[in-house]
Amino acid sequence: MGLIVLGTVALDTVKTPFGFHKNILGGSASHFSMSARTFTHVDIVAVVGKDFPRKHIEFLRRKGINLDSLKMVDGDTFRWEGKYEGDLNTAHTLHTHLGVLATFRPEITEAQKRIKHVFLANVDPDIQRHLIECMRSPQLIGMDSMNFWINTKRKSLLRTLKKVHIFVANDQEARSLTGETNLIKAARHLSSYGPKMIVIKKGEHGSFFFSDKFIFLLPAYPMEKVVDPTGAGDTFAGGFMGYLSTVRKIDEKAIHKAVAYGTIAASFNVEGFGLERTSRLTLKDVEKRLNFFKKHILL
Amino acid sequence: MGLIVLGTVALDTVKTPFGFHKNILGGSASHFSMSARTFTHVDIVAVVGKDFPRKHIEFLRRKGINLDSLKMVDGDTFRWEGKYEGDLNTAHTLHTHLGVLATFRPEITEAQKRIKHVFLANVDPDIQRHLIECMRSPQLIGMDSMNFWINTKRKSLLRTLKKVHIFVANDQEARSLTGETNLIKAARHLSSYGPKMIVIKKGEHGSFFFSDKFIFLLPAYPMEKVVDPTGAGDTFAGGFMGYLSTVRKIDEKAIHKAVAYGTIAASFNVEGFGLERTSRLTLKDVEKRLNFFKKHILL
Repeated sequence: MGLIVLGTVALDTVKTPFGFHKNILGGSASHFSMSARTFTHVDIVAVVGKDFPRKHIEFLRRKGINLDSLKMVDGDTFRWEGKYEGDLNTAHTLHTHLGVLATFRPEITEAQKRIKHVFLANVDPDIQRHLIECMRSPQLIGMDSMNFWINTKRKSLLRTLKKVHIFVANDQEARSLTGETNLIKAARHLSSYGPKMIVIKKGEHGSFFFSDKFIFLLPAYPMEKVVDPTGAGDTFAGGFMGYLSTVRKIDEKAIHKAVAYGTIAASFNVEGFGLERTSRLTLKDVEKRLNFFKKHILL
Repeated sequence: MGLIVLGTVALDTVKTPFGFHKNILGGSASHFSMSARTFTHVDIVAVVGKDFPRKHIEFLRRKGINLDSLKMVDGDTFRWEGKYEGDLNTAHTLHTHLGVLATFRPEITEAQKRIKHVFLANVDPDIQRHLIECMRSPQLIGMDSMNFWINTKRKSLLRTLKKVHIFVANDQEARSLTGETNLIKAARHLSSYGPKMIVIKKGEHGSFFFSDKFIFLLPAYPMEKVVDPTGAGDTFAGGFMGYLSTVRKIDEKAIHKAVAYGTIAASFNVEGFGLERTSRLTLKDVEKRLNFFKKHILL
């Protein structure tokens, strides 16, 4: 049991048609853990600067997240500024400030090295590989990435991909990493890089799982009001990995449930800015919406 | 039993990464009926010019489609020329020649006026309304449209919408007709124009059904090779309406099945150019793929 996530803890400034929020708590590790914690115990590996507000640390701790390896170092916390328009399907990045992320080298405790389930959220693939090397006997390693690393560190990214079991990517990333426009072909291609399991996230169009044994697809939970989609992909990954870290055997049924939990968790994320909604999320909320989804929306 | 479809019978010239075909049999009524005929008897109401190849008429007749109201008049058959690139999700229209379609006024036989199920595929909304007025006691009327009519004949389109039970639109049409980007909002808005039931087609992302009683969504059947998507939307509508025309009561279960049949029929359409694949389609093919879809792909 237990799950360790490497990623970012960030200060996000987000503008959507529903509001503007400055320097709110964000980052891949924050969003991931807020969702994964409804299933299991979560440890975050990340770095923040000395400017990082104390209240955010207290907040994460209150949510039961282990912060032993959340480093605080001299410098600025990673900041992302973006806006969404129209159908809120695409984030327009206005500004990125790497700050302390630029020189981050993760260090984890002896206890953390023995955690069996690992998720490498989007950071430099060298750092992702470094964390894998720290782990004593990982059973399940998932990873995410982004176009920035695909374009600037492809070789390193491919080396990391070789060492993971699950690769979670969005449709654009899957396409740009493989050169395939058809997503099934792209998934098969990605799998040839190493990971036996591929999850492709398609935003409002749902997600799709690929392995050489079976494929599985699920639409997104239909949302009439999307307030802020920032972190929806990480929230999905948190539900997906969080659930998988609790099962004995990863078979077709477990994957169906994991994708469904990820999908439902993400639907809550988009209902509020930042972690507004997922910070109050309970497993009961997730189960309730999942039952509705199954009963009224799917075949 | 039985279903009558008003639409186009056309000569299509299509280029995709998988080939180039000139003047092949196409049009909304052709695609619709090729799919609907696997469920019920279909009558086509359309017009062609004197240049229309005899072999296409024989072909449609051989497929069991009633052509009593396929008019042949002086002039050219409606022609469409388009190409697809990349992910084949968007048709780029290169050329449209209306020909005899420009002055078309449908006339149907006495027997056809008594058919209970009607589909108004994409033609001028004035013509669509004219056909409705010809029908004696229609039980179920579905309609489709396109951006051209939304932009040029909005008022007439809204008058037609008032008289139908089901509106089938793609996501772009739903958005441009309502000004809503969120598709659930768009569907609710469309429903306020008259039709109790709205089906929104999202191409490779599947489709979604809306009524004030329930919503239902289904991903597209995942296809590794899309050869030519021309007519996929009409093929979907053919499966959807074809199945509905055989049920006693249109309840939630019937809608789930109808959307699923439409989805599966469309997946066959994209496997070949024009009517290549759907002309050989049997209900057994459809059922087989649907079972696979349910078993291995959906929750």
